[in-house]
Amino acid sequence: MSELIELRYALDTLYFLLCGVLVMWMAAGFAMLEAGLVRAKNTAEILTKNVALFAIASTLYLTVGYQLMYGGDAGGILPNIGFLLGAENTTDAVLAGGDAPYYANRADFFFQVVFVATAMSIVSGAVAERMKLWAFLAFAVVMTAFIYPLSGYWTWGGGWLAALGYHDYAGSGIVHLAGAAAAFAGVLVLGPRRGKYGKRGEVFAIPGANMPLATLGTLILWMGWFGFNGGSELKISDIGSANNVAQVLVNTNASAAGGVLGALILARLWFRKADLTMTLNGALAGLVAITADPLSPSAAGAAAIGMVGGLMTVVAIVMLDRCRLDDPVGAMSVHGVAGIWGVLAVPLSNPETTFGMQFVGGVAIFAWVFCASLAVWWLLKSVMGIRVSAAHEYEGVDVAECGLEAYPEFRLEHR
Amino acid sequence: MSELIELRYALDTLYFLLCGVLVMWMAAGFAMLEAGLVRAKNTAEILTKNVALFAIASTLYLTVGYQLMYGGDAGGILPNIGFLLGAENTTDAVLAGGDAPYYANRADFFFQVVFVATAMSIVSGAVAERMKLWAFLAFAVVMTAFIYPLSGYWTWGGGWLAALGYHDYAGSGIVHLAGAAAAFAGVLVLGPRRGKYGKRGEVFAIPGANMPLATLGTLILWMGWFGFNGGSELKISDIGSANNVAQVLVNTNASAAGGVLGALILARLWFRKADLTMTLNGALAGLVAITADPLSPSAAGAAAIGMVGGLMTVVAIVMLDRCRLDDPVGAMSVHGVAGIWGVLAVPLSNPETTFGMQFVGGVAIFAWVFCASLAVWWLLKSVMGIRVSAAHEYEGVDVAECGLEAYPEFRLEHR
Amino acid sequence: MSELIELRYALDTLYFLLCGVLVMWMAAGFAMLEAGLVRAKNTAEILTKNVALFAIASTLYLTVGYQLMYGGDAGGILPNIGFLLGAENTTDAVLAGGDAPYYANRADFFFQVVFVATAMSIVSGAVAERMKLWAFLAFAVVMTAFIYPLSGYWTWGGGWLAALGYHDYAGSGIVHLAGAAAAFAGVLVLGPRRGKYGKRGEVFAIPGANMPLATLGTLILWMGWFGFNGGSELKISDIGSANNVAQVLVNTNASAAGGVLGALILARLWFRKADLTMTLNGALAGLVAITADPLSPSAAGAAAIGMVGGLMTVVAIVMLDRCRLDDPVGAMSVHGVAGIWGVLAVPLSNPETTFGMQFVGGVAIFAWVFCASLAVWWLLKSVMGIRVSAAHEYEGVDVAECGLEAYPEFRLEHR
Repeated sequence: MSELIELRYALDTLYFLLCGVLVMWMAAGFAMLEAGLVRAKNTAEILTKNVALFAIASTLYLTVGYQLMYGGDAGGILPNIGFLLGAENTTDAVLAGGDAPYYANRADFFFQVVFVATAMSIVSGAVAERMKLWAFLAFAVVMTAFIYPLSGYWTWGGGWLAALGYHDYAGSGIVHLAGAAAAFAGVLVLGPRRGKYGKRGEVFAIPGANMPLATLGTLILWMGWFGFNGGSELKISDIGSANNVAQVLVNTNASAAGGVLGALILARLWFRKADLTMTLNGALAGLVAITADPLSPSAAGAAAIGMVGGLMTVVAIVMLDRCRLDDPVGAMSVHGVAGIWGVLAVPLSNPETTFGMQFVGGVAIFAWVFCASLAVWWLLKSVMGIRVSAAHEYEGVDVAECGLEAYPEFRLEHR
Repeated sequence: MSELIELRYALDTLYFLLCGVLVMWMAAGFAMLEAGLVRAKNTAEILTKNVALFAIASTLYLTVGYQLMYGGDAGGILPNIGFLLGAENTTDAVLAGGDAPYYANRADFFFQVVFVATAMSIVSGAVAERMKLWAFLAFAVVMTAFIYPLSGYWTWGGGWLAALGYHDYAGSGIVHLAGAAAAFAGVLVLGPRRGKYGKRGEVFAIPGANMPLATLGTLILWMGWFGFNGGSELKISDIGSANNVAQVLVNTNASAAGGVLGALILARLWFRKADLTMTLNGALAGLVAITADPLSPSAAGAAAIGMVGGLMTVVAIVMLDRCRLDDPVGAMSVHGVAGIWGVLAVPLSNPETTFGMQFVGGVAIFAWVFCASLAVWWLLKSVMGIRVSAAHEYEGVDVAECGLEAYPEFRLEHR
Repeated sequence: MSELIELRYALDTLYFLLCGVLVMWMAAGFAMLEAGLVRAKNTAEILTKNVALFAIASTLYLTVGYQLMYGGDAGGILPNIGFLLGAENTTDAVLAGGDAPYYANRADFFFQVVFVATAMSIVSGAVAERMKLWAFLAFAVVMTAFIYPLSGYWTWGGGWLAALGYHDYAGSGIVHLAGAAAAFAGVLVLGPRRGKYGKRGEVFAIPGANMPLATLGTLILWMGWFGFNGGSELKISDIGSANNVAQVLVNTNASAAGGVLGALILARLWFRKADLTMTLNGALAGLVAITADPLSPSAAGAAAIGMVGGLMTVVAIVMLDRCRLDDPVGAMSVHGVAGIWGVLAVPLSNPETTFGMQFVGGVAIFAWVFCASLAVWWLLKSVMGIRVSAAHEYEGVDVAECGLEAYPEFRLEHR
């Protein structure tokens, strides 16, 4: 019998680790997406930010964030420093009849740490092309060590939102809306890129420099999302869990497909063009929207949730520009608007949830992350400045911040 | 004992889902390969096609195609709409002692749906740079909902070709030859790109704009093929199956390597150059060729099958151009010629098959998909037109169809 | 009971194969990294080399290398040709109560063959932009069939270094230092690129043409390394192994993150810029350094090992240039210097090892691979020449060797 338990533990661990590898891969997805959607002169810097933020998230969540998020009892907030010191943990409990690798062991840490990097990756796109590199990295330290872990504790960590019944399977709110809230605060403090908005209310398009990269990034994220959502079942070692994981993957794919079709068709009708960037953002919106509950809907229901997410995101991208909120990659629309939609759509197919509780959860996460981020951005602005000089913004942040160009041999139109 | 069955079910499900994730990843491979092999001015459109066709395949196969392909009894063709409505299915059967997740459950659907997208991806490359976006997407609807599922039903769905003994492990014929047949029909109706062939029989090279993307796409496909072939064993939970899956991966890799070496050496001897695009197509030809039976040959035999596939594909690419059949990415040669070779090579190492049955199977699949596709392409041509205007073809379909450019800041030589 | 053994065997096989798939994916990582760090005019050739070397490694290790490396008894060197002929092997032994898939079966071959390709990939970057394609491929034949397998036999194959107690979990020395030693020999025989070093000791920067590709390659390698290190536990089917694999992944990620932070901060302090290429090499250095023992350190210890690796690599890149050792991608610094550091750092956290034995192992591997490679490079130089002509080097090796350009439509500054 104990051999059977060992095997179950091993299978769950393998599943959890492989899902974590897929989520880590999303770091490449964000890097390519953002590198494709900014201008050539700001590409190396956004790449540097993406690699560095992943390293910061990995290190800070290891040393501080994970313990904050999962170390407490009900209401507790003290860090669990055992992991950092290399102490054993769940093995004995599992052998004594405990459950699959669920909490506070290494496989769980690996899965969780790539999630916090995802949340932080959302921010980098929205503040691209004008924020100082080191101010961004300083924010990443606070976000991954404190801001995300606190609302994470409220929900997945067993805190008050979990107790109240807020349901967020893989984090439409906990990860994506949180990332978008931090981005929103940053965009407010930072202001739009020079030349994005005219004095008479014009909105000038600033196209991304490299569409193949943006498409690659989207498809990487699509792939990685199977780990993001599929791993959030947390175990697979019985028929019920295995079927759940399969349903989650089917629904995740169906919702992404729905998002593509919604955005593509709306763009065709509205702009008369099959706009590729809208199509990509539609895919991502579908993925964000289904993340709050990729298990309860039927596949057709998931496709519908994704399609609505895709439609809303296209509208949101246009609306945010009318509000002069400059988001070069559409991160606030994709992760914020589709994230809210995902959180609120859960009761449509999951009878154990209520619209009211989902609303409370979404508001609480947004309010905490937005306010805390706003304070940090303001602090950084007053201490070190967060915006590059006009000259550096004009010539591109690559040379100023990184001392190199992303495409040094290619002749470029200056934009 | 039932716990052991649950564990086996879970292991098979995990294996099947992960293979499905790898096959989904092939969508990125086709997108990058095709984006690298077309001209810059047509890049955003081919990316849009690849993302949209995946969404269409996911949605149409969910709502129609899967039920057509797997819903019938012997000879049946009626859809099994239970899946769409979210009904339970195999769990009870498995607990009662049934086999691994094989048929009509969610993990199987996930694996199958990414296959149909692969078949459709083959088409997009062959008709690139001159076909209307929306005509292509309309074809994708018919292909993924009806054409592919019908011949799929004949074989994997238990229809007459399966009953006759046609052997096609992972689909050299069912997927790759089918995709190539649909592409061939499209190319015939569509005609070659302007400027590709001269009046005196000249063939003008139109090099792809971005070789790193084409190489990345090939390596993504190589990786994804481990899921494509490895998953087609359908289960892994006993020693025999596990060894089979391992043999399949070894052979798949050996055949791809053989294809590279065959194409590279032939290109060196024939053209005096280590032609990268031929090398990449050689890798893909090796992968296509081994797909009909990656289990029976020894690893050395697999390398030989792949090498022949690579050689044939290089010859086919040159021959098709002499026939003025314009295929910008070589899809017909890679998936059609190497696909036929793969189907016919099965009896060389698999004594349970006969050359005659493999020939009948290959002809039947080709004939059905080619004729049905030809009818659909002709219908689309008369209803909405399938070819962009000469002006749009000259200026590139990106601006005309998608309203944006793939590389807007990069100064390009106009080709 | 035998069903339980079958299931354990199947789980270990699945784990091993998936790790192998991730290591194969590193081929794409090296291809993109190197394609991003060379100049545009040499990009298609480096891509061709990367695809072809993978094919050569796959074929030569199958036919010769694997048998040399794992076929012998203590001290033996005779090839085990059974695998090549398709013979059965471990199934019966396992059913009779043997261990997990460890030795000389297909899953093991698949895992091992992608390792040898990794070692060879390291070479291609260091000799880029000036070496003849076919001389390089000839070296690849000898390296993957003989040079790597011999030192591999000494260690993982059970030879004298294994007997002496040399510890190298996933190959900081066996794979990475070996690759760097072969590269070092090649660089010595080949000499630097024209225009890299001035007559008065100047070092001229030759920036890589495509930073997004280099970043993508690094993140692919980061992802693939989870298979490289995670698979080197060789089994996962009990709680101890499963926890070990989880620890390995956590530590691998922590060390990469440490490498990023070390390199980024040092570059900021030393060069006043957040140099992206140094940051990427820092990540890779962290990954190389932890590879010799990703299991024994705590996660914090792993981060420290990676950070030291990142710091050392930045220093080494600058120092090698002062010695006029021209390595376009920093492969010798990343894989050689951080590889040595990784080998020597093992005793810091693993009490079963000694600094002396690690030193002997590192020296033995380096000496063998360096001397054998030097002999082969010299032989190739005298027989066929290894350096392209000055004219071809000036115009770029893409046209001369491959007959095409990587970016034919893009207008480039000639460098």
